[in-house]
Amino acid sequence: MSTTRFSSDDGDLDKLYEDFAREDVQPLWTQHGLLPATPDGLSPFLWKGATLRQLAERAGDLVGIDRGGDRRVISLSHPGLNGLPFATHTLWGALQYLKPGELAPAHRHSPAALRFVTEGEGVWTLVNGDPLAMGPGDVILTPSYTWHEHHNPGKAPMIWFDGLDLPLIRNLDAVFFEPGPDTLSPYDPVATSESERRYGTSGLVPLSPSDALKVEAPASGVHSRLLAYRWADTDAALTRLVSAAGNGYASVRFSDPATGRDVMPTLRAEMHRIAAGGKTPTTRTVGSSVWVVYRGEGTSVLNGERYDWKAGDIFVVPSWAAASHAATSDADIFVLSDGPVIEAVGLGGTETVAES
Amino acid sequence: MSTTRFSSDDGDLDKLYEDFAREDVQPLWTQHGLLPATPDGLSPFLWKGATLRQLAERAGDLVGIDRGGDRRVISLSHPGLNGLPFATHTLWGALQYLKPGELAPAHRHSPAALRFVTEGEGVWTLVNGDPLAMGPGDVILTPSYTWHEHHNPGKAPMIWFDGLDLPLIRNLDAVFFEPGPDTLSPYDPVATSESERRYGTSGLVPLSPSDALKVEAPASGVHSRLLAYRWADTDAALTRLVSAAGNGYASVRFSDPATGRDVMPTLRAEMHRIAAGGKTPTTRTVGSSVWVVYRGEGTSVLNGERYDWKAGDIFVVPSWAAASHAATSDADIFVLSDGPVIEAVGLGGTETVAES
Amino acid sequence: MSTTRFSSDDGDLDKLYEDFAREDVQPLWTQHGLLPATPDGLSPFLWKGATLRQLAERAGDLVGIDRGGDRRVISLSHPGLNGLPFATHTLWGALQYLKPGELAPAHRHSPAALRFVTEGEGVWTLVNGDPLAMGPGDVILTPSYTWHEHHNPGKAPMIWFDGLDLPLIRNLDAVFFEPGPDTLSPYDPVATSESERRYGTSGLVPLSPSDALKVEAPASGVHSRLLAYRWADTDAALTRLVSAAGNGYASVRFSDPATGRDVMPTLRAEMHRIAAGGKTPTTRTVGSSVWVVYRGEGTSVLNGERYDWKAGDIFVVPSWAAASHAATSDADIFVLSDGPVIEAVGLGGTETVAES
Amino acid sequence: MSTTRFSSDDGDLDKLYEDFAREDVQPLWTQHGLLPATPDGLSPFLWKGATLRQLAERAGDLVGIDRGGDRRVISLSHPGLNGLPFATHTLWGALQYLKPGELAPAHRHSPAALRFVTEGEGVWTLVNGDPLAMGPGDVILTPSYTWHEHHNPGKAPMIWFDGLDLPLIRNLDAVFFEPGPDTLSPYDPVATSESERRYGTSGLVPLSPSDALKVEAPASGVHSRLLAYRWADTDAALTRLVSAAGNGYASVRFSDPATGRDVMPTLRAEMHRIAAGGKTPTTRTVGSSVWVVYRGEGTSVLNGERYDWKAGDIFVVPSWAAASHAATSDADIFVLSDGPVIEAVGLGGTETVAES
Repeated sequence: MSTTRFSSDDGDLDKLYEDFAREDVQPLWTQHGLLPATPDGLSPFLWKGATLRQLAERAGDLVGIDRGGDRRVISLSHPGLNGLPFATHTLWGALQYLKPGELAPAHRHSPAALRFVTEGEGVWTLVNGDPLAMGPGDVILTPSYTWHEHHNPGKAPMIWFDGLDLPLIRNLDAVFFEPGPDTLSPYDPVATSESERRYGTSGLVPLSPSDALKVEAPASGVHSRLLAYRWADTDAALTRLVSAAGNGYASVRFSDPATGRDVMPTLRAEMHRIAAGGKTPTTRTVGSSVWVVYRGEGTSVLNGERYDWKAGDIFVVPSWAAASHAATSDADIFVLSDGPVIEAVGLGGTETVAES
Repeated sequence: MSTTRFSSDDGDLDKLYEDFAREDVQPLWTQHGLLPATPDGLSPFLWKGATLRQLAERAGDLVGIDRGGDRRVISLSHPGLNGLPFATHTLWGALQYLKPGELAPAHRHSPAALRFVTEGEGVWTLVNGDPLAMGPGDVILTPSYTWHEHHNPGKAPMIWFDGLDLPLIRNLDAVFFEPGPDTLSPYDPVATSESERRYGTSGLVPLSPSDALKVEAPASGVHSRLLAYRWADTDAALTRLVSAAGNGYASVRFSDPATGRDVMPTLRAEMHRIAAGGKTPTTRTVGSSVWVVYRGEGTSVLNGERYDWKAGDIFVVPSWAAASHAATSDADIFVLSDGPVIEAVGLGGTETVAES
Repeated sequence: MSTTRFSSDDGDLDKLYEDFAREDVQPLWTQHGLLPATPDGLSPFLWKGATLRQLAERAGDLVGIDRGGDRRVISLSHPGLNGLPFATHTLWGALQYLKPGELAPAHRHSPAALRFVTEGEGVWTLVNGDPLAMGPGDVILTPSYTWHEHHNPGKAPMIWFDGLDLPLIRNLDAVFFEPGPDTLSPYDPVATSESERRYGTSGLVPLSPSDALKVEAPASGVHSRLLAYRWADTDAALTRLVSAAGNGYASVRFSDPATGRDVMPTLRAEMHRIAAGGKTPTTRTVGSSVWVVYRGEGTSVLNGERYDWKAGDIFVVPSWAAASHAATSDADIFVLSDGPVIEAVGLGGTETVAES
Repeated sequence: MSTTRFSSDDGDLDKLYEDFAREDVQPLWTQHGLLPATPDGLSPFLWKGATLRQLAERAGDLVGIDRGGDRRVISLSHPGLNGLPFATHTLWGALQYLKPGELAPAHRHSPAALRFVTEGEGVWTLVNGDPLAMGPGDVILTPSYTWHEHHNPGKAPMIWFDGLDLPLIRNLDAVFFEPGPDTLSPYDPVATSESERRYGTSGLVPLSPSDALKVEAPASGVHSRLLAYRWADTDAALTRLVSAAGNGYASVRFSDPATGRDVMPTLRAEMHRIAAGGKTPTTRTVGSSVWVVYRGEGTSVLNGERYDWKAGDIFVVPSWAAASHAATSDADIFVLSDGPVIEAVGLGGTETVAES
């Protein structure tokens, strides 16, 4: 969007524009790009995983976790967003790096977050006191207003992808933040969290002693009751689906097992598998997404440009970009999108683009 | 409900009552019991499992499956329902018995059915062509309008509990029935059905190639996408819940993993576990239920009367009956109720009754 | 539905059937008509308005309102329902007659009721204390669990149609009833009820001081917030719709203005207008309905049989009956159906029948 | 939000920050204000109506409607939004000025709009061909993707307030825009639009010949079926509610009469009345709103600062600002907010602030 001043030989008009500015109004007719024919707010962009990882490790060496924000987080800053530390207008993507013995202490906030573990293991994330083990390929939720903290009791550093709705919630001017207590939370490192013990069986909803988690219930009540999705389950489901599909790709959506809704009201999470040699159709979707390559190599064509990727790379598919994805080796890609919000406002849609 | 004729010395009134009858109307003021203070339509009732089993076996010896209705089914006929072959006003409960080599051919109907396997295994139930293995403790759905057939290719007879909403759907005058083809459906006896392959992982909803089952989609679209709930899963979930609950009992509700809703819009299915020595509080609930004892022994107190039960027994808890359940050995009870209907009409409710 | 005993030369089989009966079970294979191809539970039936009116007046002369049930109500008793005082399996239809100076005192119950005034005026119905004036063509709701009473302070008797879900709620064994206090409720006879003052303007939902009625809120919370639909409004809406439709008929559904849902979770109410010479297509619908002719004359063809009607007549259209309606003079018909229940259980449907 | 560079004697850290910038990532720990304790994105702001009106008239004299964007619109540009022509992060507010004989030709777009007429009359707005008369106090909807155009066939200019969700939809990168045909749409200037003829009676939903408008249905299907809310109705409803409330103020929410939902999935519209001498409690609400004073005078206290207002003034109440409103003469204020979006993402909430 840009604003041009109409050149004018008319002093009255010049004066009018000056008065507009002084009175904090603007004429619509000098705005350009305010209403584009189709979404054009952002270009595709790709960050290389090797670069991100090396930067994270250097930060681990140089910056203590207590330096600010209580988290050692390096956020994707899309160059089309004027220096904002955001991946898209609505999505935050980042790498978080936690060294052995470190603790990212408890806090909570209205923006919702999830973690996708690209490699490593050993960290425990406590969500309202429920300890969730983190391992490769796992998706871990820390929903809106839940207390959450990360402990690394192991001997190796750990890196994971953080996805948040922070840009959206900031734009809604609805960010609330509360720091937690200074003291450490003790926890019992059990491999299966209470959330998984209660909601980990498909189609079974616990009735007693009550439907609530023992730990403090989240304020919003609209996110998934299941807080951890294990890679072994996701992998097995995708294996069955790719086998049944017969065209080389399949995908699953992570959902609340008690409602089928998205993991958060603001965030959709999916895992896409493309077998070596497979290729998806070209589609456009309203809303933006961040693609985190977990495994394999391949190429995406986004608005006609090639983006080669391999495990660890992260790329943005902007709203309404024509996108197809092909794998040269068996590939799994974690996808975070703002789909639920786009659909809530009645503007959701996907169309298939004819191949040229 | 009963109707009494007011005694009358008044010939005009007698004549009026005669005219009422001739014109197919009735005076409200001679109706008794039409509007009871609380539900009083039915008493508790218990059928002994050993008796039911012996009758089923004798029927197996004497009656061919082709004798009528294409099913060898013995229905519970509550003595308070004037000879109707129904367990409660809304619920059908029955034992079905299928001998080695027998086939109950395909048909479909608007009433919804589910099967709970109390013992035995080896039968395959095909639902819209998807073959579902049946084993002890499994819950198998044959939803409204789905084609379903039962094959027993094994060497042993098999018995299971049939639960249907038939009394309700008859009362709504909404029964549709269609016989299937005479020819046998071939099927591939794979232990994991397509329904389970697609919806068997908690929190994962398949996105591609499409959300639909390959087999013909049911007409109603309102029942569970998952058609088989395996005992191993149910048992494990209950073990965890009883352990966490700490008071000796717990229960799960079977649900559609893609929506969290009940398995059918008309039927709720639950499994209750009471550890030896455990006892539930006394509660009343609007709506009726059928309790099928799967394992263990115990006693229920229903409206103040004791009903002792053990594995195989089936009993009715009528609407608003004060009910508590205690186990003398570890017990699992499958419960079928009309809860979703009661709630859909805005009349759902449970209250805890103070113990005397 | 009927049960036949198979003739048997086999003494073992005879013995088995005897044992079935003694043990309160029944064989499916001797049941006939349990699963008809299509709904066949009831025939169409018509009551003449003149007859009903005359019976009501005679009851007014001979029977005091305190004789029983606190209401002078004459219920339609469909001859296909074995003497039950019900219009269909799910619907209660009746005439209520209240003489000058009479009071039908307060009570409440879980079955939901509505009143359609076929003629006369002057009665006030109090719903949770909110006084609703009753006039010709008005639809007045007394939802589930609301206290309601009828006062006739005028000089003329008044008759109206009562529609209830009582047969359904009885069959769900979910009837609760509570008599009200002996003392009279004082009320302020204001032409516009509080319900209408708050919800009588299309598209406006009151926000303050709160969304609740001042009078006691109904327990269920699922029925319409608007309790009175005035004939002047209904008439004007139908006039506009018939004019726009161009084919001589139109209809409106009465709904909760704050949700668009049916007036009750169990009852759908509609008003159908057929201009003189107009005729509807022939359709079949799952679920039963009671048609109360308010104005005009005409003929309905139900399952191939002619039923001539005029103002005051009441007829039943059973589930799945092929039905078309034609008017010889401008006609308005109030229709009460169990549509919301049929739809809640996933079995709703209407099909158009090709004309022969 | 601001970013500070940590001063560093450490060359390695300086180098790391340089590499972060070059690789399009940012460290979280140098971000300030990204996660405020409570929403702090915007200050209250007030535009004077007299000033806005005079600027609009001058634009009418100097700028033709064909100059750009096909609309003579002057948008509120909150000084806290860095020059963006938006009232809040999510809401667009503007004055539109149309002179006698002018036509703002048809276009359509994914952002949803509504018009609130502060003064004047005589313009016809066509929405998908349905002509809606515009008069003082009327609320006129032009929902997402509906074709809309404005005609002024009269002899006087007309001004109204435009409210849109454009800032939100831009931030979701979901703006689609399509210009209409060059030719004029003929229309029949009937005082009651088809939308009002069909949905203008509270509680009546048309059933036939179909539920659809004759004119082209909007793509989204999620906005209100009623497109015009007339001042006479709103005024009468508020008069009744203020009278019943007894504390000097009341408000109504404009809603879809067939669902009760907000007029748009992105926009909530309300009318608040405060009688002379009345004062609302102080509350905070998540989400922002634009208040357009229609009638009367008064004062709002927003985050402790006084804002005096009278008819024609427009002010912003930012997210979570403590706000109370008092009237010195009978006042009506139209309020546009992003409430439905805030609630859709699970973050809605209002709290009452104790008066000091």
